[in-house]
Amino acid sequence: ERPREKGIIIGVLPTGSINAITDVPGVKVGHFTKIEGDNIRTGVTAILPHGGNIFQQKVPAAIYVGNGFGKLAGVTQVQELGNIETPIILTNTLSVAAGIEGAVRYSLGQNETAQSVNAVVGETNDAYLNDIRGMHISPEEIIQTIQAAQSGKVEEGNVGAGTGTVCFGWKGGIGTASRKLPESLGGYTVGILVQTNFGGNLQIDGVAVGEKMGQYPFRNAMEKSDGSCMIVVATDAPVLERNLERMAKRAMMGLAKTGGIASNGSGDYVIAFSTAEELRIPYSAKSGTLESAEFVRNDDMSSLFMAVIEATEEAIINSLFAAETMEGKDGHQVNQLPIDQVMSLMKEN
Amino acid sequence: ERPREKGIIIGVLPTGSINAITDVPGVKVGHFTKIEGDNIRTGVTAILPHGGNIFQQKVPAAIYVGNGFGKLAGVTQVQELGNIETPIILTNTLSVAAGIEGAVRYSLGQNETAQSVNAVVGETNDAYLNDIRGMHISPEEIIQTIQAAQSGKVEEGNVGAGTGTVCFGWKGGIGTASRKLPESLGGYTVGILVQTNFGGNLQIDGVAVGEKMGQYPFRNAMEKSDGSCMIVVATDAPVLERNLERMAKRAMMGLAKTGGIASNGSGDYVIAFSTAEELRIPYSAKSGTLESAEFVRNDDMSSLFMAVIEATEEAIINSLFAAETMEGKDGHQVNQLPIDQVMSLMKEN
Amino acid sequence: ERPREKGIIIGVLPTGSINAITDVPGVKVGHFTKIEGDNIRTGVTAILPHGGNIFQQKVPAAIYVGNGFGKLAGVTQVQELGNIETPIILTNTLSVAAGIEGAVRYSLGQNETAQSVNAVVGETNDAYLNDIRGMHISPEEIIQTIQAAQSGKVEEGNVGAGTGTVCFGWKGGIGTASRKLPESLGGYTVGILVQTNFGGNLQIDGVAVGEKMGQYPFRNAMEKSDGSCMIVVATDAPVLERNLERMAKRAMMGLAKTGGIASNGSGDYVIAFSTAEELRIPYSAKSGTLESAEFVRNDDMSSLFMAVIEATEEAIINSLFAAETMEGKDGHQVNQLPIDQVMSLMKEN
Amino acid sequence: ERPREKGIIIGVLPTGSINAITDVPGVKVGHFTKIEGDNIRTGVTAILPHGGNIFQQKVPAAIYVGNGFGKLAGVTQVQELGNIETPIILTNTLSVAAGIEGAVRYSLGQNETAQSVNAVVGETNDAYLNDIRGMHISPEEIIQTIQAAQSGKVEEGNVGAGTGTVCFGWKGGIGTASRKLPESLGGYTVGILVQTNFGGNLQIDGVAVGEKMGQYPFRNAMEKSDGSCMIVVATDAPVLERNLERMAKRAMMGLAKTGGIASNGSGDYVIAFSTAEELRIPYSAKSGTLESAEFVRNDDMSSLFMAVIEATEEAIINSLFAAETMEGKDGHQVNQLPIDQVMSLMKEN
Repeated sequence: ERPREKGIIIGVLPTGSINAITDVPGVKVGHFTKIEGDNIRTGVTAILPHGGNIFQQKVPAAIYVGNGFGKLAGVTQVQELGNIETPIILTNTLSVAAGIEGAVRYSLGQNETAQSVNAVVGETNDAYLNDIRGMHISPEEIIQTIQAAQSGKVEEGNVGAGTGTVCFGWKGGIGTASRKLPESLGGYTVGILVQTNFGGNLQIDGVAVGEKMGQYPFRNAMEKSDGSCMIVVATDAPVLERNLERMAKRAMMGLAKTGGIASNGSGDYVIAFSTAEELRIPYSAKSGTLESAEFVRNDDMSSLFMAVIEATEEAIINSLFAAETMEGKDGHQVNQLPIDQVMSLMKEN
Repeated sequence: ERPREKGIIIGVLPTGSINAITDVPGVKVGHFTKIEGDNIRTGVTAILPHGGNIFQQKVPAAIYVGNGFGKLAGVTQVQELGNIETPIILTNTLSVAAGIEGAVRYSLGQNETAQSVNAVVGETNDAYLNDIRGMHISPEEIIQTIQAAQSGKVEEGNVGAGTGTVCFGWKGGIGTASRKLPESLGGYTVGILVQTNFGGNLQIDGVAVGEKMGQYPFRNAMEKSDGSCMIVVATDAPVLERNLERMAKRAMMGLAKTGGIASNGSGDYVIAFSTAEELRIPYSAKSGTLESAEFVRNDDMSSLFMAVIEATEEAIINSLFAAETMEGKDGHQVNQLPIDQVMSLMKEN
Repeated sequence: ERPREKGIIIGVLPTGSINAITDVPGVKVGHFTKIEGDNIRTGVTAILPHGGNIFQQKVPAAIYVGNGFGKLAGVTQVQELGNIETPIILTNTLSVAAGIEGAVRYSLGQNETAQSVNAVVGETNDAYLNDIRGMHISPEEIIQTIQAAQSGKVEEGNVGAGTGTVCFGWKGGIGTASRKLPESLGGYTVGILVQTNFGGNLQIDGVAVGEKMGQYPFRNAMEKSDGSCMIVVATDAPVLERNLERMAKRAMMGLAKTGGIASNGSGDYVIAFSTAEELRIPYSAKSGTLESAEFVRNDDMSSLFMAVIEATEEAIINSLFAAETMEGKDGHQVNQLPIDQVMSLMKEN
Repeated sequence: ERPREKGIIIGVLPTGSINAITDVPGVKVGHFTKIEGDNIRTGVTAILPHGGNIFQQKVPAAIYVGNGFGKLAGVTQVQELGNIETPIILTNTLSVAAGIEGAVRYSLGQNETAQSVNAVVGETNDAYLNDIRGMHISPEEIIQTIQAAQSGKVEEGNVGAGTGTVCFGWKGGIGTASRKLPESLGGYTVGILVQTNFGGNLQIDGVAVGEKMGQYPFRNAMEKSDGSCMIVVATDAPVLERNLERMAKRAMMGLAKTGGIASNGSGDYVIAFSTAEELRIPYSAKSGTLESAEFVRNDDMSSLFMAVIEATEEAIINSLFAAETMEGKDGHQVNQLPIDQVMSLMKEN
């Protein structure tokens, strides 16, 4: 049961049909989960903006750096050209190289003349549960993850790139959510997927759960609160890169509402793209031809901003509710959020 | 009575002694409130990083643009040089020119050889209650506001630059708050001052007040939620400009926790500075001499980030509790937050 | 006689018909020159992207900060929203407030319901020749400058905002130039206008004039080389804001080719806009309607980049050839570039 | 013979003792050149800010994106934290993954507890001469390159990451140069290393060589001018990250003076660092201790800016003079700059 089914209704906008990033038509998600022996607890998550050849049909995109203590690959080209040309890969910090190599090999395989590929690969650090120094993800596993991507239901919790992550001191993982604007506001869908691995003072739909349970940063003036959060924002609204960046920026506001503080060691990044077909950027266009587009005006962006904030907050909470207690490297154990206790707290408040 | 005195305790860190930006030693605040006839409801607020000659003793500073639909003057020089050299002025959107002229004349008056002055002047739009097109603030009034600045208690609500502002559909205004880190975390103080004039889905300490009272954006798919928020962050921690920018960025996370959505039309800016004396930048240094400084490391920034988030959230709520119903231009009336009703909601939750 | 007429042919692309920013159809330029008594040597230059109501019909625009030691007003809103809604004003450093007030009053006058206006006002510091502390420009003079703007020939040298400027140790001023791409590359025009007030090691079409004449920075390890350059880039190419920013960035490369070094004290800014009618952004669009546009693709931008570099280099050199020796404040005199001597040097090389 | 020995004296500042990046004490450079069979023409260049453990003793650093059509890894962490913690790796576009993996493995090997490593890996595209799709660089070769790095003379031309590059239509490669400020300006050294692979209208010390030889972009309105340039800036001046970024920005001005236009497809990046020992950032500092530093003031930066511009221009020209004709993939041949013809042109001008 996801939080919403338990009665935790975050925000005021309605969700898409399955409350997942895949509510945005065409978006596919693949997970590869690697749990081996005592010490390997990691994985890969791939998000595909559409089911076609992304290198040939690039999507308008933007990246916002919430806090840049991270290794996200592909940033500057996305910012310079305003588009993404590969699947988006999430994995662990020391497997970014594997992520790039996998995404590049996948693109080269699909595109025989390609000689330059900008892979977008994000990460969080799962070193507490995972033998991260072992660099246990291979480029082949990246390719498999891409190939396994599908529409529909998205698994949450200890899966894919969320296999070994920790969030607010509890087991984190993958979460997803969506919002669908009313037709009068365009009827657009906004979908979010998060890889949660950060700290702070957990709030669930406004309730100060972390504080009430005595688990929050600096409570003994000692605990650190590091970690990271990767956030992917998809929309079918025809939004160009400048306004996609503004949407991306709002995702950090959703993170803030869960109690995250974007601590020094946090690598918090938001990658946003539009799936609108009429905004695709072809790899080869006849020289001198103009790009033609219809896109959302500045004045109509605010409801999309609100959708991003709400869905990001909910996706993070979803990741916590889905994740289960995990034991990993060096006998480290991270407990799942105690749902019953949390629900009691929620009802009291 | 401020919210905290009513039992609304935002966050977990202790406040400074008067829970105001002036808890940061040396910081002074001046207000000039202009309420004249039926249509003039505006004013000026000046924040002085220290009581000396700021042009001669510049302070390390940074500006973060949360959403740039605004007219903040002085941004690029602060970002390029990493310092502020005038009092910070807040006023209404169409009085930025008066703000600059006032701050410049003030600095020229103090510094006989100065020929270049970078005034930092922020604004929000009080046009609903104020005849903003009348441009009713003069440079002389700016200078007076600077000269009237003082340490100690800071008036909140319908005062200074907050005289005519609207926040979450209620009367907004000036708010302030502070946090003091424990000695083990450096014992630093972080102070915040806000000019609240923005919209969203009001949350008070996590309670969805806006939603419960039926006042939030897009509820009829029609209401807009525009406006702006100026946020000033002061600290006595010896923090250089790069980390001041990171602190500034966290203020938007505090704003997010009140339900703000940084709508398209919002001019949301955060100006952060350090008052640490050893980091002052002299106007004239002997050519070739090095600047010498001791400053907080990246690794120790997280508690300062958390302090910014908490104090910003509280300062915004403080502005709402202090502001009173105001009638202004064209008979427009903006009601104060119904405190009793809100307190009932808070207790239920 | 302009340098090109003297045989100095900068670059390889052809110029527009009068080699001025006004070769871009619709662009108008106004100058107001204030030379009074011994000490006032300043002025205003206004650049209008088109002859209509700019607030109602905003133009796509971008601003690039080459070196931010300057007071350019309006930056963040241009960057956030991607457009300019007023004439662009250039003046002296301490008259930015007058510039904003003038541009705002002009816009309010044209637009009875406007309550928020983002004035774009740039400056350089003419304090060596001008009593800059006297703040001798009034808002009314700004408005007059706007109203006097016209198409066609643009006066260069000691005129408008260039009246009191100094460049490479010689008298600087206003300069302009243009490039027209061949039809096979779109046939677009790029026009540049500069206000030159900076230092460095002057090179004219590659010839190290500064060095050969013994006038360059740090030659005695003592001379400073400060000052600033405002650069305005206009094009009729349908280019959106992201690619306009890329064009703006290239203008600094043109400046570099004249020997400019963007010294610490230099406020070097580039403001770029497209006049393409189909890209205008109306002040009021029906909510929910999409913006429709045809625009130049990334892949076709390079020739526009080259046009910007060439025309900026030429516009700067043009300003030096047009400016005449001026005496000003405190008996300071700045000599014009010794054209005959320079031409001899050019011919030797 | 390097250009300077042939009498081409770029700029006015003196060089360091060997006119190379290694004039900055402590800096080491390693090259790995891979020429195999008909189709492999690529390599790796590693730049080490100092000879110690860089992860333990990070250096203040900044990255400036001249044009972001590139895959430079490590950008956001350098910008967020202001430091570099690995050797800087340059290679070909599709070997960035190998570069990251190599740099990470090298750092893990040196630091047994490290779990997060931010590798800085730049690239240009050598696909015309090299079978880039073959991804012929391995992580082990990256590590070897790092280990082979040494002080002293730096090989230029067809070596390391410059093995297969093309510049202005001629064979490009690795180039280096330096400047040493007089003692009165601090006596600091600035060293530059470039990997040249870009196009434009070649100018050598101001002489329009490209134009005179009929080789420049768009001369038939057809030729494209793509490619990239990686630029590394080292200095022993104690400069913090903000001013390092300003130095990095000036490197693009040096590139401009060679005739580069930063075309759409160019990935032009500048990585700058200071080797000053007193500015090193230790991996582990006692929590709560301040960082102590003496650093160059804004006011004293201009001569360092000029040094960067001059040395970058010279390093690029050096790369062209050192590179030799190369035949590679698919029988493609790229000729070396015809030095004799160029020297004749230089003498005529």
